[in-house]
Amino acid sequence: MIDLNADAGESYGAWRLGDDEHLFPLLSSVNVACGFHAGDPLTMQATVRRAKVHGLGIGAHPSYPDLPGFGRRILDASPEQVYADTLYQISALGGMCRAAGVPLRHVKAHGALSTRAWTHAPTAAAIAQATRDYDSALPLVVLPSTLLETEARRLGVPVVLETFPERAYLKDGRLAPRSLPGSSIHDPQEAARRAVTMVKEGRIEALDGGFFEFEVETLCIHGDNPSAVQIAQAIREALAAEGVEVRAFSVPVPRL
Amino acid sequence: MIDLNADAGESYGAWRLGDDEHLFPLLSSVNVACGFHAGDPLTMQATVRRAKVHGLGIGAHPSYPDLPGFGRRILDASPEQVYADTLYQISALGGMCRAAGVPLRHVKAHGALSTRAWTHAPTAAAIAQATRDYDSALPLVVLPSTLLETEARRLGVPVVLETFPERAYLKDGRLAPRSLPGSSIHDPQEAARRAVTMVKEGRIEALDGGFFEFEVETLCIHGDNPSAVQIAQAIREALAAEGVEVRAFSVPVPRL
Amino acid sequence: MIDLNADAGESYGAWRLGDDEHLFPLLSSVNVACGFHAGDPLTMQATVRRAKVHGLGIGAHPSYPDLPGFGRRILDASPEQVYADTLYQISALGGMCRAAGVPLRHVKAHGALSTRAWTHAPTAAAIAQATRDYDSALPLVVLPSTLLETEARRLGVPVVLETFPERAYLKDGRLAPRSLPGSSIHDPQEAARRAVTMVKEGRIEALDGGFFEFEVETLCIHGDNPSAVQIAQAIREALAAEGVEVRAFSVPVPRL
Amino acid sequence: MIDLNADAGESYGAWRLGDDEHLFPLLSSVNVACGFHAGDPLTMQATVRRAKVHGLGIGAHPSYPDLPGFGRRILDASPEQVYADTLYQISALGGMCRAAGVPLRHVKAHGALSTRAWTHAPTAAAIAQATRDYDSALPLVVLPSTLLETEARRLGVPVVLETFPERAYLKDGRLAPRSLPGSSIHDPQEAARRAVTMVKEGRIEALDGGFFEFEVETLCIHGDNPSAVQIAQAIREALAAEGVEVRAFSVPVPRL
Repeated sequence: MIDLNADAGESYGAWRLGDDEHLFPLLSSVNVACGFHAGDPLTMQATVRRAKVHGLGIGAHPSYPDLPGFGRRILDASPEQVYADTLYQISALGGMCRAAGVPLRHVKAHGALSTRAWTHAPTAAAIAQATRDYDSALPLVVLPSTLLETEARRLGVPVVLETFPERAYLKDGRLAPRSLPGSSIHDPQEAARRAVTMVKEGRIEALDGGFFEFEVETLCIHGDNPSAVQIAQAIREALAAEGVEVRAFSVPVPRL
Repeated sequence: MIDLNADAGESYGAWRLGDDEHLFPLLSSVNVACGFHAGDPLTMQATVRRAKVHGLGIGAHPSYPDLPGFGRRILDASPEQVYADTLYQISALGGMCRAAGVPLRHVKAHGALSTRAWTHAPTAAAIAQATRDYDSALPLVVLPSTLLETEARRLGVPVVLETFPERAYLKDGRLAPRSLPGSSIHDPQEAARRAVTMVKEGRIEALDGGFFEFEVETLCIHGDNPSAVQIAQAIREALAAEGVEVRAFSVPVPRL
Repeated sequence: MIDLNADAGESYGAWRLGDDEHLFPLLSSVNVACGFHAGDPLTMQATVRRAKVHGLGIGAHPSYPDLPGFGRRILDASPEQVYADTLYQISALGGMCRAAGVPLRHVKAHGALSTRAWTHAPTAAAIAQATRDYDSALPLVVLPSTLLETEARRLGVPVVLETFPERAYLKDGRLAPRSLPGSSIHDPQEAARRAVTMVKEGRIEALDGGFFEFEVETLCIHGDNPSAVQIAQAIREALAAEGVEVRAFSVPVPRL
Repeated sequence: MIDLNADAGESYGAWRLGDDEHLFPLLSSVNVACGFHAGDPLTMQATVRRAKVHGLGIGAHPSYPDLPGFGRRILDASPEQVYADTLYQISALGGMCRAAGVPLRHVKAHGALSTRAWTHAPTAAAIAQATRDYDSALPLVVLPSTLLETEARRLGVPVVLETFPERAYLKDGRLAPRSLPGSSIHDPQEAARRAVTMVKEGRIEALDGGFFEFEVETLCIHGDNPSAVQIAQAIREALAAEGVEVRAFSVPVPRL
């Protein structure tokens, strides 16, 4: 059993991004943009409703405040600012879920906020603390072996461990920099093979030799990838062939 | 017994507005800006904490998205957009309250959104519906005899009736346009006299002759008025002299 | 000889809108978004450069400040605000043109700002005044028989008269409301036929009978229409078959 | 003869910041916020007009796009983004100047954008290039001995050298970090003494011993400092007592 998640609700006003309509039937969880890098309130509401229809686990996807940069640029925000911005975004999506009669099931930091939290403990702690202060049972989706995992565990925030079948790893567990050849996997079948290896063996070949070993509870695919639907389809079929069920990770009974 | 409310948390980033520090000890409720016309997340958090210290009833103060116009410009947003924007803002503040361990006690529309809702039923209904969908026990603070009151009651949203001791009324219940001489009351003693008359008699002299009669559960003073602290002080003293206690309106046990 | 214009540069950050790449070779002028409803600075720069490559006349396309609503919602901004917002946007694009070594050739109001200016003289005057104050030789593209035309002429701003081959008209010259059947023309051949009629006859059949007669100096097609490229292609071919050259309207030697 | 500059136009919408009214009579140049960290279009226009009344040299003060952080947070923007954002802001203010019939006389980077440019050559080059592409005669105000000075000179952008009488320096020319005791000078008389020393001797005592020596063409005071007016007054009086005239630096005949 494994969860399959993707970022969602990344449209904004008149602009469309991602193919939520065709991707949602293939996922078990979604990370919903909360207005700071994408996702105006109407889009958030529509995304929550669509996720509910498909029975997906809904998570908040907080970001640095950066619409023109899509939250992909590191901003030297203080931990206090990161805490308040994260709590604001979790709350906004949490209330939308509540109004739609579905629970908020996880939090996952977006883009540069996430990258910063992998190596900067105060940022990681601010994200974890905001998650806990909103709901102490709410899990944070984290990349294993990062300071975000460390800080979440230290603060008692439940963690869900994530890997990327479309991204190559180094043997120390870091994602291979996008500048390296082979850092991104574009072939759906290869992504599917890697997904199966990750889930069945708990490890993956590293780009610099050997293997990176890990626990994994959720696989993430990139919804803004034009071939996201094909990749998700291939992963689901490969997992099914191995008898692995795709299902949202279970969380304690959440507060509505 | 009467509630005394003011808008609060209207600073933004480096910019200060209002004198929350000195005004809060004199109030019983505050309407907290939620980021669309004022109030960045850090300011919201600080405002919630300060309100908690003073035991004030905390309300969300949703607005049209209009930072440069401070939410004072009518925007021809569809009811669907008003609903989603309002729900987003209530949720954002509601989560901040939850993290601070205090309940969200009311919702009050800000500026042009409020003005529009007085006379435009779909906008009024969108605000009321968002309030109800967030929490069906959450009251909406409304100006009596407006479509906002009508729609809130129609949708079963609890209402709290509000009057303005600093503003003159016409006998049909509308606020006297600011262009009319005498439409705004600047003298703290006169504002205090009017506050007492409103609470004790349930009516006030109209600018165009006769009286406007109403029920009142909360008095609103303008926190962005430079003399807000003096006016609040004068009103409290005048009410105390008449044996009227200033206390937040009671609401059903709210969900945290 | 006639000008063919379309809105352009309507992407924003990570979001794409319109098919500027394939549309630009078919146009003679473009109206470039200036950051208030679309068009971040990088997009503006890229759009100006692309327009220069194709030898297009470049115009500024100012809007109300409304990213989530794409500038399509009327905002009750004061004339002073409209003036300053318009001047800001013209200037921003004008400087981008200057840096790219091409002149700014016109101004055209976007969306709700334009609609508002058709019937609200102070808004119209504010737009015209901002255009004149930036460069007194800079023409404003206007819909004939609107207050925007009237105010521009009154203030001595050169005007360029525009019609829409894809939109039906009423006989009094107003665009047929989009709620009326037949108000929008989707068939490229019909749009092309209308374009030729407009240019050759100076009139078009009205949706409510009879004809609307006008002068026309530029035809506008909608770049955000998925079939914009086909429509532009059909119009160009039909005009060429009639011996009408598509060329940017001439303007006085502009200041760089 | 020396120039005395301060940041200006840092209000936004309903929020006031700085005391431009009382500060402008004491200055010879102002750096005007362009909407990215402060300064909406109406404020920009009013600031340009006020500066014109006082005969001040007007400069653009571009920033990272960061209203909630007032442009004080480093953003990991690419050089291409910095270039486009800077050109956009210079252009916006330049057009406002043009409409007001006054020249734009300089550019000075704000806050974190400036700090970043001191040590990051690609950011420095992007700012300098945008300045040059807007107007090759337009000078950039720079802190001496920074990469911003180096890159501006390399690209042939005229530079104006700036020092801060209210800030302590280290002997290597860096500003003393604000965390060090004595890093900020609050006493107007001491700031005035330092201003005179800087101008007359071309050096200042360093916080870590010895002197920092420099050329100086403009002194900067902080307009958002509550005692900015007193400091400016004290500096002017001290300079006058030494026979130093306060006057905007001369620039080549600028293009309107």
